This record gives sequence, C-alpha cells and structure tokens, in this order.
Amino acid sequence: MTERLKKQMDFILEIDRLKKITRQTYISDASRFENDTEHSWHLAMMCMLLSEHAGGNVDMLKVMKMVLIHDIVEIDAGDTYAYDEAANATKRERELKAADRIFGLLPDDQGKELRTLWDEFEEWQTEEAKFAHTLDNIQPIMLNAATDGLAWRNHSVHKNQIMKRNERTAEGSEVLWEYGISLIEENIDKGNIKE
Amino acid sequence: MTERLKKQMDFILEIDRLKKITRQTYISDASRFENDTEHSWHLAMMCMLLSEHAGGNVDMLKVMKMVLIHDIVEIDAGDTYAYDEAANATKRERELKAADRIFGLLPDDQGKELRTLWDEFEEWQTEEAKFAHTLDNIQPIMLNAATDGLAWRNHSVHKNQIMKRNERTAEGSEVLWEYGISLIEENIDKGNIKE
Repeated sequence: MTERLKKQMDFILEIDRLKKITRQTYISDASRFENDTEHSWHLAMMCMLLSEHAGGNVDMLKVMKMVLIHDIVEIDAGDTYAYDEAANATKRERELKAADRIFGLLPDDQGKELRTLWDEFEEWQTEEAKFAHTLDNIQPIMLNAATDGLAWRNHSVHKNQIMKRNERTAEGSEVLWEYGISLIEENIDKGNIKE
Repeated sequence: MTERLKKQMDFILEIDRLKKITRQTYISDASRFENDTEHSWHLAMMCMLLSEHAGGNVDMLKVMKMVLIHDIVEIDAGDTYAYDEAANATKRERELKAADRIFGLLPDDQGKELRTLWDEFEEWQTEEAKFAHTLDNIQPIMLNAATDGLAWRNHSVHKNQIMKRNERTAEGSEVLWEYGISLIEENIDKGNIKE
C-alpha cells in the first residue's frame, strides 16, 4: 500500500467517529437524537434535490462536499448546541484546532482541499456557503416540526433565539426560508416555541 | 408552498426513516451496528477522496449521488445481509416495489433521475456503477477489520463467501481491492474469517 493510500484510509477510518457525535435534534420518529453523519447525509440529499431553490448559481458538487464535511471537526470539538451561549464562546477555537489535526491526516493536497472547503463554509460568503448554511439551518427545523417541537420544548426555545440563529438563512434560499418560517409559526401557535 | 416543493420536502422527510435501517456491520468502536445513512455518508466521503483510484474515468458527482441514494429502497425492503441466501432470493422484488413507491414521491423529473441512478447502480455496467459498488464492498471490510472481525465472527463467515461477494470488486478499483484483500488475509490469519 502506498503512503498516500494509507493516509487516505487512516482518515476514512478516523472519521467513522463522527457517527458517535450526537446533535440536539431528534430523528423524525422522536426515538433518539440524530448524529452528525446522519445529518450530513440528509443535507447532501437536500442539496441534490433543492439546489434549484438556491438564491444564486451554485456548484452542486462543491455544496455537496461542503455539507458532507462541515461537521467533521466535531469529532474533536463536539457538537455545540445552537442556543448554548457559553459553549459557543469557545467553539471557534476548539474547531480550528480540530481542523488542523483531522484534515492534517490526509495527503497534503487533499487536506488542503477539505480545509479550504471548510473555511469557505465557515466564512459564509460564497453562494455555495450560503446555500449550505441554509440547508444546515432548515433541516433541524423540519425535524423539530416533525417531532411536534420536541427539541424546542426540551430547551424552552424562544422565537427570538430562532430568528437570531436564522438571520442569514434567507440569503441561501428565500423559498426554503419561507418554508422554515411557516413551520416556526405553526409551532409558535402550538406552544412548542415560546413567543 | 408550491406543489413541487411540497413533494420535495415530503420525500426529504420520508427518507429520514433510513436512519433506522441497521446493517450487519459495526461502527469502528464496535459499540453498535451502523445504519444505512451513516454507511451512505461514509461512501460519499470515500468517493470524494478515493476517485483517483477508480478503474476508469468516473464523474464524481454522479458516483456521489449514486452512493447517497443506493440504499433508500431499504426503507421498505429492509437491509438484506450479504450472506443470507433466503433473504437474497426475494431481495430484488422487494426493492423494485420500494423504488416505485419511494422515488414516486418526488416530482416526476427528479423521481426519474433518482430511479435512473439507482437502476444504473443495480445494473453494475458503467464505470460509475462499478466504482460505487467497489466502495460499497470495501467500506464494510474496513470496518469489520477495525473491529477485529466482529461481524465476520458473529456470522462464522468463510473466505469463499467473501470472495464470491467480491468477485467484481476489482472492476471498480484494483488498488482498493488489493487493500481489501490484504485485510481479508490478515483476518484469516487471526481466525476471524474461516478458511
């Protein structure tokens, strides 16, 4: 086996650990939390089917790669819950350190490619990054709505927290944000989200 | 919400059920079985990083879509264990019925696109389908080896069963099949696979 293939396979085995990183979102039958790899697969499927609704022209392969890798740093840094302010204060530092280590396992050219993609996602400037963030924000709204607001109720989430979290979601797709807001309003009416 | 977006979102929520379909492969820390969405994400990551080892020229986006959707029919048909002969006898019929129903939830053009991709995977003729099958076959070998052959030991798997299952794996990538066979031989030596 070449050194290059060994590095590739070491990375591929290492990222298996992402299957153990759980989020605060329940899967649709509310039986358990979703993990990062399930979430990433779901975003890639949404990318495949919803890119016609993107706000700008997007390179589908690039968005797909971006959503598949966007949470890999959480192998070291853990999942930071959207509404946990203390954890969010240290998130960036923890994730940068994780990116250095994990993408550093790959052959140089591929490590750089994935790191550049992850940086682009984090910087949230390009059409691809905007659309990827929109998918990343809409997917848990969809699942929370499907589970009668279970994750929102667990954390007594307020509408203003959700609106702040989603202040840029429409940039990636106005149509998908309209869909998201309709679910949010429905769940305010049901009392699942606090006004 | 347009009828088109409604169909897209209904499908996207429906496929969340794939997170509950477990395989016979353990994740790398051997704590539990892997599910179909975790497996599909892992194959998409392998596609992203290993396509340079493909036997022929492959369209990466096409392979990526193929591996992301290849198990969706198992929402209805269930996972059929590779070495369960009785279940494999009825697999094709169960999966065709599932493909009609599940891909039929999408708007016509997208339902046809995904069905065509899935048919191409099943027919195993194009370079993309061959490479996708190679990834699909190598990933569980990697995980089984990482868990000291746990899934092989559980089912008392023999070398000839694995070789039959993998008789076409080299077509998608000789390099990856060489990697796979090295793990298989190592696990025969350890007694995890029966000679």
